[in-house]
Amino acid sequence: MFSGAQISLYPMSDDFVGVIMSALGALDPYRDQLRIESDDISTLLVGPPEVLFPAMRDLFSASARTGKHCVLSATISRGCPGEPDDAICHSTQFDGPVAPLAERQAAALTAVQDAADMDVFSVAQLSLYVLGQGNHMDEIYGCIDFLKQSGTFEKSKHFVTKLNGDAGVLFATVEQAFCRFGPPQGHVTIDLTVSANSPSAR
Amino acid sequence: MFSGAQISLYPMSDDFVGVIMSALGALDPYRDQLRIESDDISTLLVGPPEVLFPAMRDLFSASARTGKHCVLSATISRGCPGEPDDAICHSTQFDGPVAPLAERQAAALTAVQDAADMDVFSVAQLSLYVLGQGNHMDEIYGCIDFLKQSGTFEKSKHFVTKLNGDAGVLFATVEQAFCRFGPPQGHVTIDLTVSANSPSAR
Repeated sequence: MFSGAQISLYPMSDDFVGVIMSALGALDPYRDQLRIESDDISTLLVGPPEVLFPAMRDLFSASARTGKHCVLSATISRGCPGEPDDAICHSTQFDGPVAPLAERQAAALTAVQDAADMDVFSVAQLSLYVLGQGNHMDEIYGCIDFLKQSGTFEKSKHFVTKLNGDAGVLFATVEQAFCRFGPPQGHVTIDLTVSANSPSAR
Repeated sequence: MFSGAQISLYPMSDDFVGVIMSALGALDPYRDQLRIESDDISTLLVGPPEVLFPAMRDLFSASARTGKHCVLSATISRGCPGEPDDAICHSTQFDGPVAPLAERQAAALTAVQDAADMDVFSVAQLSLYVLGQGNHMDEIYGCIDFLKQSGTFEKSKHFVTKLNGDAGVLFATVEQAFCRFGPPQGHVTIDLTVSANSPSAR
């Protein structure tokens, strides 16, 4: 199964190039486990979710630690029928049949308890899309139930669910939303925004 | 049918607040046709596509004309089964049964020929998601065919299609992608990024 993301990092600073360039070092531990390609609008990361989400977390956290208002925006996808399989994406977590929803929600809640502490307070919002099947809203509502119990839920908004908390638990929570909802081999995408250091009132 | 977007504007500038505040005036002509709500991560625009896309175009163009590197990111949605109908979203363009794909592609190509000229060169990338049905890839491939013929196509990337051109034709093209593909009353979303004045090589 092919999986990855198109990501962009937006530091609201005259020195946005410097902030981005210094944050990119945070990707170094992951470079041999990801395929990375950049152009003028986004950077492609191809790899399994268990590498992809920590890599995005570390990149975003490094930029947020500058104190500048920084946003990471990501189009995350797995199982798109139009994408070729790629060995670098191999993950055992999508083997086997789909488990009952309650079981997957419980496993997701357990997984986020082990999240790393990044010491970077952030807000995030996400939309989960489960494609290619008629019951997509059941999976989406199941995911939203998980998000509400995750400890990071802030509010439901039109089209998205908003979370807040440490970047560690936020990225772990989005990873669980991405991996546990929709069929294991299904086409699932997430539209994600994570923000730190905004001067606006929450 | 409910339709709208969660949008965010990212000026890569120390004066990001000033750039955003001055660009917001571009929304004034649309305020009585949209419901607008902001928090610290995005602004909700609720209204029909024929208002929503020109409003996003004008907001983005106003910020890009500052010369700063600016990005607009949007989660755009119509027909979500979880959203209530709202009179402000009323549009006649989703009445009736779905027309044959070739007919919709031709109508989309005709529509983009009338796009406004904003005199703002931009790049954009988008993902179209057609939800709640098994043949979603047929509609997505049909949309990509339209994008390839639209005059703004730059390249296919993993997960997204990249366009470039004047902001006027770019937003008109994305509006056609949003309105013409997927069933008229179906659940369709677009994950959109539009960027101007990036110092990176294309």
